[in-house]
Amino acid sequence: MTTADPVARILGGDVRAIARAISLVEDETAAGRSLIRGLYSHTGHAYVVGITGPPGAGKSTLVDRLTAEIRRAGLTVGIIAVDPSSPFTGGALLGDRVRMNAHAADDGVFIRSMASRGHLGGLARATADATLVLDAAGKDVIVIETVGVGQGEVEIVAAADVALVLLVPGTGDDVQALKAGIMEIGDLFVVNKADREGADRVVQSVAANLSLQTFTAGDWQPPILKTEATAGSGIAEVWAAIERFRSHTAGSQPQRRRVRHEARLRQVLAQQFTQRVDEVLPRAEWQRVLDAVAARTVDPYSAASDLLAHVVPLFQTRAIP
Amino acid sequence: MTTADPVARILGGDVRAIARAISLVEDETAAGRSLIRGLYSHTGHAYVVGITGPPGAGKSTLVDRLTAEIRRAGLTVGIIAVDPSSPFTGGALLGDRVRMNAHAADDGVFIRSMASRGHLGGLARATADATLVLDAAGKDVIVIETVGVGQGEVEIVAAADVALVLLVPGTGDDVQALKAGIMEIGDLFVVNKADREGADRVVQSVAANLSLQTFTAGDWQPPILKTEATAGSGIAEVWAAIERFRSHTAGSQPQRRRVRHEARLRQVLAQQFTQRVDEVLPRAEWQRVLDAVAARTVDPYSAASDLLAHVVPLFQTRAIP
Repeated sequence: MTTADPVARILGGDVRAIARAISLVEDETAAGRSLIRGLYSHTGHAYVVGITGPPGAGKSTLVDRLTAEIRRAGLTVGIIAVDPSSPFTGGALLGDRVRMNAHAADDGVFIRSMASRGHLGGLARATADATLVLDAAGKDVIVIETVGVGQGEVEIVAAADVALVLLVPGTGDDVQALKAGIMEIGDLFVVNKADREGADRVVQSVAANLSLQTFTAGDWQPPILKTEATAGSGIAEVWAAIERFRSHTAGSQPQRRRVRHEARLRQVLAQQFTQRVDEVLPRAEWQRVLDAVAARTVDPYSAASDLLAHVVPLFQTRAIP
Repeated sequence: MTTADPVARILGGDVRAIARAISLVEDETAAGRSLIRGLYSHTGHAYVVGITGPPGAGKSTLVDRLTAEIRRAGLTVGIIAVDPSSPFTGGALLGDRVRMNAHAADDGVFIRSMASRGHLGGLARATADATLVLDAAGKDVIVIETVGVGQGEVEIVAAADVALVLLVPGTGDDVQALKAGIMEIGDLFVVNKADREGADRVVQSVAANLSLQTFTAGDWQPPILKTEATAGSGIAEVWAAIERFRSHTAGSQPQRRRVRHEARLRQVLAQQFTQRVDEVLPRAEWQRVLDAVAARTVDPYSAASDLLAHVVPLFQTRAIP
């Protein structure tokens, strides 16, 4: 088994091979990219559910309960919890271990926490690749969970097949959440901890916000659901709403995915370009440009234009090392 | 006055010209880039203070009080509040108006809210350019305030001359904040609402976290300060700590700024590359590649490699439209 081709092992659902593949793409290694090349033709079957909400909204609990619901429907689940943990405090690893317990005995569920990477865009790329790995491994539904405050984190969820925005009653948190630019991305709104005071006020705020948007006949109208995830109440309704959304948007889903492919392709293209620049541009030349920018004798836009004009011919004359 | 060159007006501190310039760079217009080119040689004098913390930590109040303190020291202040508000609900505009009142009569203070842009990286670029505009306009200190949860938002603060992390006692928020990967970027930690129960526990958590990091002799040891921003207490100490940090790091500041310049230059270079691709690559060819990626016949990494090899020769043969 361990001698088999990693692509074959992932396609066969081998948990260790999947975990290793995700580590490789998370670290942005050449081996990870090579795996994605091998797996890609086997992807496109999974339905991707994005879930975002403020810290403390109960995302983990909701995802756990929703996973149980999806399993009852006979489907397998892959979970990617984007945890903005410090590599220093090791929070993501702990999260993994704590959460694994709930579905530990179920090999129809694969859970993975991903920590924020050191640079902008790295997280989106790693999450997209991890989704492909789980898709190729045959998971029917992939749930991506992020904290819904940062721009990058919200965008990851906006790129899913369905985007669920989780809210919670609390001391002004409802307003915070609505202000965070996540109203536009919600295909579904869920007010968790609905037994708490203020839950109806949150529902009304969301409804008021939605009423400002113009929907035309036939448009999906984002529902606002209430849950008490800890007690498990309302979860079946959330899954039913996701299934309704999936049916409703079956016709437009290829277009939605195409937008996602295009954004992805642009991102990878820019990354490969930057890598090629580092390969062909001697470090001394790079330093000279930086010296000029630091000395304020050339501005960053002009410096970048000059660099672009300078490196492009090098792409063709210098071999890849 | 209104007929004067916009660069001259900004250098002269003209409030309307500054506001217009920031709008132009925020919208990523060619006019904005042209202004930055004209202003750049007049920048580099301002000291950039980055402040981040969870929603509800009291960032706005702290920034208002700190601004008053900096003004008492005889320095002018530019404030960029990165507000992840919805363009749809218009939150940022409202924030602007509410906050303007506190320093409305003081022309030594310029306040600007910036909303999250539609794409990753846009916010960092717009904030960096707005900082240059305020720097050229002669502001001595520029304060950049962001919500400290998203990766992109945290990075903006990490790129400042000094990074202040604001924490607040509360229901587990201290843990959330420490988990958000912002421990490493803090040059200064401030526990606001220090009259609340649990403030000392937050101070201890931060101290415990810092004790895990290895500092060598002569390294700056991030202090942990307590404030009650609403009452104005502790604010003078925060400004004193910022001044101490500035003196302590005076020798290493050029290197820190160089790292910032390099990140900036790479970002602008990648953006210009992407723009050039859109200019030279016929839309039909782009669609053909997207079709193949959507049909899963080619993976995104291979598609990007092929595109890169294809567009580079076009850069040299096709004129910029």
